[in-house]
Amino acid sequence: MYGNIHTDLAMEARESNSALNGVSEERTDNEHYSVSRIKIDTDEAASALQKSKGLYITIEAPDLVLRESELIKAVTEALSAELTGLIDKGGTSGTVLVVGLGNRAVTPDALGPKTAEKILVTRHIKQYMPDAIPNGVRSVCAISPGVLGVTGIETMEVIQGIVERSKPSLIIAIDSLSSRRTERIASTIQLCDAGIQPGAGVGNIRSGLDEASLGIPVIAVGVPLVVYASTISRDTIGLIASELGLLGNEEKIKELAAKAISEKTGELIVTPKEIDSLIECTSTILADGINMCLFGKDYAEVRSLIA
Amino acid sequence: MYGNIHTDLAMEARESNSALNGVSEERTDNEHYSVSRIKIDTDEAASALQKSKGLYITIEAPDLVLRESELIKAVTEALSAELTGLIDKGGTSGTVLVVGLGNRAVTPDALGPKTAEKILVTRHIKQYMPDAIPNGVRSVCAISPGVLGVTGIETMEVIQGIVERSKPSLIIAIDSLSSRRTERIASTIQLCDAGIQPGAGVGNIRSGLDEASLGIPVIAVGVPLVVYASTISRDTIGLIASELGLLGNEEKIKELAAKAISEKTGELIVTPKEIDSLIECTSTILADGINMCLFGKDYAEVRSLIA
Amino acid sequence: MYGNIHTDLAMEARESNSALNGVSEERTDNEHYSVSRIKIDTDEAASALQKSKGLYITIEAPDLVLRESELIKAVTEALSAELTGLIDKGGTSGTVLVVGLGNRAVTPDALGPKTAEKILVTRHIKQYMPDAIPNGVRSVCAISPGVLGVTGIETMEVIQGIVERSKPSLIIAIDSLSSRRTERIASTIQLCDAGIQPGAGVGNIRSGLDEASLGIPVIAVGVPLVVYASTISRDTIGLIASELGLLGNEEKIKELAAKAISEKTGELIVTPKEIDSLIECTSTILADGINMCLFGKDYAEVRSLIA
Amino acid sequence: MYGNIHTDLAMEARESNSALNGVSEERTDNEHYSVSRIKIDTDEAASALQKSKGLYITIEAPDLVLRESELIKAVTEALSAELTGLIDKGGTSGTVLVVGLGNRAVTPDALGPKTAEKILVTRHIKQYMPDAIPNGVRSVCAISPGVLGVTGIETMEVIQGIVERSKPSLIIAIDSLSSRRTERIASTIQLCDAGIQPGAGVGNIRSGLDEASLGIPVIAVGVPLVVYASTISRDTIGLIASELGLLGNEEKIKELAAKAISEKTGELIVTPKEIDSLIECTSTILADGINMCLFGKDYAEVRSLIA
Repeated sequence: MYGNIHTDLAMEARESNSALNGVSEERTDNEHYSVSRIKIDTDEAASALQKSKGLYITIEAPDLVLRESELIKAVTEALSAELTGLIDKGGTSGTVLVVGLGNRAVTPDALGPKTAEKILVTRHIKQYMPDAIPNGVRSVCAISPGVLGVTGIETMEVIQGIVERSKPSLIIAIDSLSSRRTERIASTIQLCDAGIQPGAGVGNIRSGLDEASLGIPVIAVGVPLVVYASTISRDTIGLIASELGLLGNEEKIKELAAKAISEKTGELIVTPKEIDSLIECTSTILADGINMCLFGKDYAEVRSLIA
Repeated sequence: MYGNIHTDLAMEARESNSALNGVSEERTDNEHYSVSRIKIDTDEAASALQKSKGLYITIEAPDLVLRESELIKAVTEALSAELTGLIDKGGTSGTVLVVGLGNRAVTPDALGPKTAEKILVTRHIKQYMPDAIPNGVRSVCAISPGVLGVTGIETMEVIQGIVERSKPSLIIAIDSLSSRRTERIASTIQLCDAGIQPGAGVGNIRSGLDEASLGIPVIAVGVPLVVYASTISRDTIGLIASELGLLGNEEKIKELAAKAISEKTGELIVTPKEIDSLIECTSTILADGINMCLFGKDYAEVRSLIA
Repeated sequence: MYGNIHTDLAMEARESNSALNGVSEERTDNEHYSVSRIKIDTDEAASALQKSKGLYITIEAPDLVLRESELIKAVTEALSAELTGLIDKGGTSGTVLVVGLGNRAVTPDALGPKTAEKILVTRHIKQYMPDAIPNGVRSVCAISPGVLGVTGIETMEVIQGIVERSKPSLIIAIDSLSSRRTERIASTIQLCDAGIQPGAGVGNIRSGLDEASLGIPVIAVGVPLVVYASTISRDTIGLIASELGLLGNEEKIKELAAKAISEKTGELIVTPKEIDSLIECTSTILADGINMCLFGKDYAEVRSLIA
Repeated sequence: MYGNIHTDLAMEARESNSALNGVSEERTDNEHYSVSRIKIDTDEAASALQKSKGLYITIEAPDLVLRESELIKAVTEALSAELTGLIDKGGTSGTVLVVGLGNRAVTPDALGPKTAEKILVTRHIKQYMPDAIPNGVRSVCAISPGVLGVTGIETMEVIQGIVERSKPSLIIAIDSLSSRRTERIASTIQLCDAGIQPGAGVGNIRSGLDEASLGIPVIAVGVPLVVYASTISRDTIGLIASELGLLGNEEKIKELAAKAISEKTGELIVTPKEIDSLIECTSTILADGINMCLFGKDYAEVRSLIA
């Protein structure tokens, strides 16, 4: 409306465009968390929401930041169940490549690498020591390709190279996301079957990671860990415009926003102070949920063999 | 004006109270950095600025974030020189205790512990192996007391205990600060001879660390590393109020601010994404400047003996 | 025999002195771990074993390094139970101070600081917000005093200062230990009621931490994480001496040992390559066991309030 | 002789085979360090030394562990000069890919990843913003492929994929090495033009990284950071055998060695306690030397643009 508020959550994009055609939504509330499913069906809706066509599943658990063990367990299991639904569409055998996007040296951007480290990898065992692991255990590998500014190599180049060599049948890509509401930091998980597009995530990529570019399904799993400082300014302006009856005066609002938000502000991020421990806890939930989903009934055995 | 904008920089507090009595200020500009000295002389001025009486020296080097080695060297030497001026008032012999305040597990709050780790300590060598170190080298020790939420012990209790045992004649306390301008993050150093007061710094303390409480001079050295998210909202409101000619309508502005800034927002912090590497670089500048000041002509020798 | 083999485990010291008077021993074997209790009763026995008089409890779980979750749970509970036995002698109320000895920047020496970070601290909550926590929950605080080479301050000086201020009724001190057998690394826990003596532990201290020096009971909890390289040389020499029938020729063996073990070798340590993850896992077991013991039936509630 | 002593240093392999044909050696001593060049010319010599044919340059600076800044500077420049000699053979233009081998989560094995992080990467800037960087600056990229046990993907598979995509003309591969003498830990740098072979390095690889497999020259740069515990046992046995006049009795010595060195001992490593800080210092020397070599006269400018 008055400038672009960036959000990586389809649910938030949908909130500001509630009357849009080509989008369907359903929501289930549980005691401690809710699950919403947004399906973007048409190119028009995709363009209006600035998200690719596909299914976006959002698990919201506002109390997750309290790190109560029962809720962590419930959310981990919900993630595993939702991921199982998405993966089943991509086939239940074949190697899964888990990709941890982002920069491990930047705390709020380290969710991907921290999660990838905690994935139980089996591909090499199945390849070199097949007798050491139960027959039927899924082949899983995991890599963190780093970010362009640190490696000088496009994330897409690294992943394409690895895909050609390791021949996975499915990619699960993990990334830190931005939200427009600070309450969602570390308490929301988004899964989607549309892969990851350029400009999305905290450690932005330049080329999309999706089935069109990689030839295999790409499921993206992310958690909002930052809000851009410019979002706070825009929200403040929106609120004031509403309070002062300026909502019709788009010109004036744009002018105010331009003055309030310098180019530099756009790059600043807002996080809770306890971001380091939130990343630790969140990456464990993601990795446990993914491991649980990928190994199913063999999970405990694989864990004791490998971890 | 329209609610409290929190800043740990006396220079910023002074900017919003420029007509105040009881404060003197002088400023020197160099090619790449400037040094300002603000002296708060009266209780009235101290109360208006919400800072203790004392001398506040601010080194500003906007280009410091580019990490160009010449500028880093110049700022390190400027810090050493200014610190020497402050320390001389406290005597040039006797043990110096460097205290790294803050929580090492929270990136923007880790400046104190990271700096303390890089201080060259000599107290134990002078005590147990006096022949291993040149005569006349200053006795230096360094500790990071942790934060109340992690230890369950007040910072002041830990420091008082250590002061009683190690009998320093001077404390240099390092802390992450908050600023009201994001441009000052990691590019400004504040030194002051008034110690540290409750509510100051990112890892807030409950009792003041100063000469009144500890019986020895306390020099505080800090670098702004966060801006509170509420400051961004307040700045946006101030700007709009000015644009819309609302500046006289204090009631309205306060009402808007109250709506824009929830209690939760107040705890959120704004940092640049590269905060991890900024902390690394900034703690090295502080530790080098302090080491250079404390060891003077013996610096190179002490460094090669200990580091 | 042929030079001093250093071990921090009373059980190992006892093995090489099995015929000693003044020492009693009992041992219980469980399915996956064993618990032995060695009581050193006389000054003569203490001197021969180079350990203080007192009770030494050793939990041995050779498979612990496999990190199987059931065994981790069993050992954590065994630690909690044994610690409860030792603590009960020191009274069940009053503040407990957990001290994490060692240098957090040296991987095999970081067990103490890593464990202390994971202790649930309640002292400040009981003091400042007593209504926020169930009545009767024990007051617990935790500190890592650092090591002399990094702080310039004796560990004992820091702890005495904190004890005077925080007035605990009991100290639990955590430290990395040395063993003479590499198989015991990360698979053995030693508890003792005699505190910690100079020269013990990986991050050696200069003054004993015990009831005599601090006026309150000191329970030491440690895990062997290193073997000294000189121990490997001595073991090799011992083996060869036995094979070659040199066991009577003490002079010759001493001469060989002196040649094989240079001063520098004495400082080298032997660790498994996976020491970083062993420290992570071991510090969690210790912290969980201590938390479980200190909070008893309130453990789950305290955990959800604080963690 | 009495079992295999593993060393990654050609210089050490040569010491135990001094009479070998097909090897030439020269050595230059400077004030604070020496440089030796060993050229392995024949397949017989390669097989006897268990090293590939090629040129092995060893910089030895026993005092490097004292971290005196002048010596660090001298060694960094020597590394840069030697590397320039090796690289010139591979051509002075084209992209250079720096590969950091090893596991960043295992301290003594983290030299590669830690060094790769400190390489100044320019490839993406030359590609997307060529005007932002001086013409003629070399294109450099850097990646840490992780280890098989963490990723489930062979190091070689990852690198081949990246080579195909990023089309470098030269690889510089960094790895932690093993030595047979503890004195060489962190004070010796080996460069060679033969790439890296399976079984070499601390984080062993399964397929060789060399010109034969990758189609471009591979220069290996490594620093010994561990000695295997079995080496200590073998050295002790060798010394005793010599002392006791057993040197002719190979059977007896082999028998003793087999008894002294269990399979488990072979995996244990010996390091100095200060390994964490040695890795930090050593990776900086390697990265600075490589950056200096690759950017030559543009080094300072590239550094201020990127770091």
